[in-house]
Amino acid sequence: MSVIDLNSDLGESLGAWSMGDDAAMLDIVSSANVACGFHAGDPAGILATLRAAKARGVAVGAHVAYPDLIGFGRRNMDVASPDLVADVIYQIGALQGLAQAAGTRIAYVKPHGALYNTIAHDERQARDVIAAIRAVDAGLALVVLAASPLVQWARDAGLRVIAEAFADRGYTPQGTLVSRRDKGAVLHDSALVARRMLRLVKDGVVEAIDGSLVRLDAQSICVHGDSPGAVEMARAVRKALEADGVAVRPFV
Amino acid sequence: MSVIDLNSDLGESLGAWSMGDDAAMLDIVSSANVACGFHAGDPAGILATLRAAKARGVAVGAHVAYPDLIGFGRRNMDVASPDLVADVIYQIGALQGLAQAAGTRIAYVKPHGALYNTIAHDERQARDVIAAIRAVDAGLALVVLAASPLVQWARDAGLRVIAEAFADRGYTPQGTLVSRRDKGAVLHDSALVARRMLRLVKDGVVEAIDGSLVRLDAQSICVHGDSPGAVEMARAVRKALEADGVAVRPFV
Amino acid sequence: MSVIDLNSDLGESLGAWSMGDDAAMLDIVSSANVACGFHAGDPAGILATLRAAKARGVAVGAHVAYPDLIGFGRRNMDVASPDLVADVIYQIGALQGLAQAAGTRIAYVKPHGALYNTIAHDERQARDVIAAIRAVDAGLALVVLAASPLVQWARDAGLRVIAEAFADRGYTPQGTLVSRRDKGAVLHDSALVARRMLRLVKDGVVEAIDGSLVRLDAQSICVHGDSPGAVEMARAVRKALEADGVAVRPFV
Amino acid sequence: MSVIDLNSDLGESLGAWSMGDDAAMLDIVSSANVACGFHAGDPAGILATLRAAKARGVAVGAHVAYPDLIGFGRRNMDVASPDLVADVIYQIGALQGLAQAAGTRIAYVKPHGALYNTIAHDERQARDVIAAIRAVDAGLALVVLAASPLVQWARDAGLRVIAEAFADRGYTPQGTLVSRRDKGAVLHDSALVARRMLRLVKDGVVEAIDGSLVRLDAQSICVHGDSPGAVEMARAVRKALEADGVAVRPFV
Repeated sequence: MSVIDLNSDLGESLGAWSMGDDAAMLDIVSSANVACGFHAGDPAGILATLRAAKARGVAVGAHVAYPDLIGFGRRNMDVASPDLVADVIYQIGALQGLAQAAGTRIAYVKPHGALYNTIAHDERQARDVIAAIRAVDAGLALVVLAASPLVQWARDAGLRVIAEAFADRGYTPQGTLVSRRDKGAVLHDSALVARRMLRLVKDGVVEAIDGSLVRLDAQSICVHGDSPGAVEMARAVRKALEADGVAVRPFV
Repeated sequence: MSVIDLNSDLGESLGAWSMGDDAAMLDIVSSANVACGFHAGDPAGILATLRAAKARGVAVGAHVAYPDLIGFGRRNMDVASPDLVADVIYQIGALQGLAQAAGTRIAYVKPHGALYNTIAHDERQARDVIAAIRAVDAGLALVVLAASPLVQWARDAGLRVIAEAFADRGYTPQGTLVSRRDKGAVLHDSALVARRMLRLVKDGVVEAIDGSLVRLDAQSICVHGDSPGAVEMARAVRKALEADGVAVRPFV
Repeated sequence: MSVIDLNSDLGESLGAWSMGDDAAMLDIVSSANVACGFHAGDPAGILATLRAAKARGVAVGAHVAYPDLIGFGRRNMDVASPDLVADVIYQIGALQGLAQAAGTRIAYVKPHGALYNTIAHDERQARDVIAAIRAVDAGLALVVLAASPLVQWARDAGLRVIAEAFADRGYTPQGTLVSRRDKGAVLHDSALVARRMLRLVKDGVVEAIDGSLVRLDAQSICVHGDSPGAVEMARAVRKALEADGVAVRPFV
Repeated sequence: MSVIDLNSDLGESLGAWSMGDDAAMLDIVSSANVACGFHAGDPAGILATLRAAKARGVAVGAHVAYPDLIGFGRRNMDVASPDLVADVIYQIGALQGLAQAAGTRIAYVKPHGALYNTIAHDERQARDVIAAIRAVDAGLALVVLAASPLVQWARDAGLRVIAEAFADRGYTPQGTLVSRRDKGAVLHDSALVARRMLRLVKDGVVEAIDGSLVRLDAQSICVHGDSPGAVEMARAVRKALEADGVAVRPFV
């Protein structure tokens, strides 16, 4: 039987401000990337999300980010290595503490936003994130963009690597994401997205923007939950997978 | 042979701003209360302090605080229980992660500033801090003001409690600190302070503001390092203790 | 013809987090209390709100607060006078700068949340806020809780004072708000609320929790917009007032 | 008689953390670049600096920055235009409010750190800063790096531009600063620095790193005050200028 992990960003509310529908998404995904307070999330809200994930048997990972609440961690920041290493350790540790209190444990690290995009190609920052993970717990997996050089950098450093595909994104023939500036970057048809992800799990390929098939080695699929439409699409993906006999399970 | 612990607040620099002389204090104290980023301390600076403490064999504790950088954690804040519990867990966890990276481990928790003062008498917030510690690691000790009701609250909850005296503070006949608004609250004579602390360790008493002797059950002495004079006084206390055969050692 | 001002809290989104329906509320109120970045609001969002207010002819005030994003300015903080005075000046100035860029001007100051509640009875902090306003622009009005001692403190200091009533709150026979801990603190029936406010404007009285009539000298009514139901209630209040010939206009 | 302005960064303390010797520098410079809270400075400390500047007749400018306290505004951040424009307006406004309270007024804007360096060559961000200044007060001058394209961009937009030289920096034959990564980037000899600045004021030239003379059109000289040595060098520059009949005066 085929098996795949579905992951989504959760715990991104902040004090009086809510974001996303964590309860709905926890019924859909098998892994929750939980904000650590640097781009989103306050401690009490993070703890509540971790408890809800524990109650539903959803695995949890540390969604580490640049220190930028106002920019939601989406702005590139030129953070020096000693700061980046320590920032990532700090966030993982904070989340581990809260996970312990929630009766669960952090299983992986998935960088967020600008940090995620940067380390997919910037070797210096990538090595900083890898060093941070190894310094806290070398057993933590790292979730990375499939087909990026980071896959190899992290493996060479001895980390367990989980490559992920994005359900709602278009792909180039080279297996990279179509830039958000170009047509076809984001897909809006839930049925189409579900079929694409089923094919990815079954055959290991996704149809690229030019119609060619591109091979993608992915152990997890990232779905979004930041709008009612996004939740609906995530649910459609899960249903299509299960209808075809694919088990949705944490990779842990 | 008598044994006592000396503790001090460290890791309180913030980015480009430095505070205190951590290197000097790490040669004097046996326990370092390390800032966790809420009242002071950035991750890279905290990590450097933890590494220096590890190198000198100094025990480390989490110096948890209200979330108030500008007020340095010295302003009372009416933080609701779910937030206070989670804030304390978050800080302990973050410091545990950094301690792991530094090759050491957090041995205790000492609340800072306004939080320290508040939980010495406010039972609701005290129980929140106790619950937070138990949720992360019930083996962590809690450093508290000697003679405060918090000693009993924490013991009743099953925590190991370390009561501390303040080297440079005046005491009332009841064993509480003389208010900073009153005369005699702060002592400035290093030799006098050293003699007082020696007596405390040897005989378990300190001379109160009215000349009477007050019994104080303290397993640690807090010294300050935020000015050259403070470092000098801390050094004098340690010298006086050792000259009289008292061993300065972490309580851990 | 009777005239009254309707005010509401706006500009409380923060980066990626949205809050309230500013567009809807700007069609209902005559005065917008705009967040200044201390409890809510980022500069770009604040500027957008100020431009929208300008476009609709809605007056704008500075909704100053304690520095506490995570607590949304709702937690009491013991801020010393030099800090509180400067914090309030800073926020007013920042909003004045953004208002200038939006082609409008700040007409008044309305403290938010815990600061609002505190200065309604705490004379020290009240005088700090008054001093701050006078230091920036003594022509700014101060919006305060009707029947609080702050009305007189501010008038004695030479400030123009606008007393306000809360549309959806119950009142004691003394003209103070029923505590949120007690029954009858918050009213949920839009039609009832609209009738109460109409009576307040027409006759200067509101029915207290015990059925007695209490005189309330209010030049503005505060309505909320933080939920679809709240927007609906605010709209009902405005409709009821206008249907009875009351003009809704900024007090400025 | 020759006239020149001396400017320095002030008001960079933050709550309990102090930085620089504002009092000493206010006796040396004619213009103070005052932090606005984004990279440094809390409202009460900023207000105190503004009052001290007013008392000594020192002109004040808004030292605007990226929102990055931990990085002290020295890290590049990819801030989108709507945010950058509003961030700069917010900071100028906040400082104007505090200046009003201090009995002085903001005369100019000088971006700080990474923002200063970026807009010296990045036209998009440069135009954002220019737009922000014009939106608040088109009469504010902009202090910029001499010989950078920003001089022309700002002039074309109608702003008054003050070009500045750096007392302690080496120059290339093209009039740009020697990179901090290269030898000769920073000068440490106070007497040499003083002679160079005297020549700059008298003859409009500075000796470049290769021994050639480069023409520099500067109306202000930036001196530092972040260490006792830096204060001493700044004092030496002022003494040398005045000894040779050059008047040190704000450009305002």
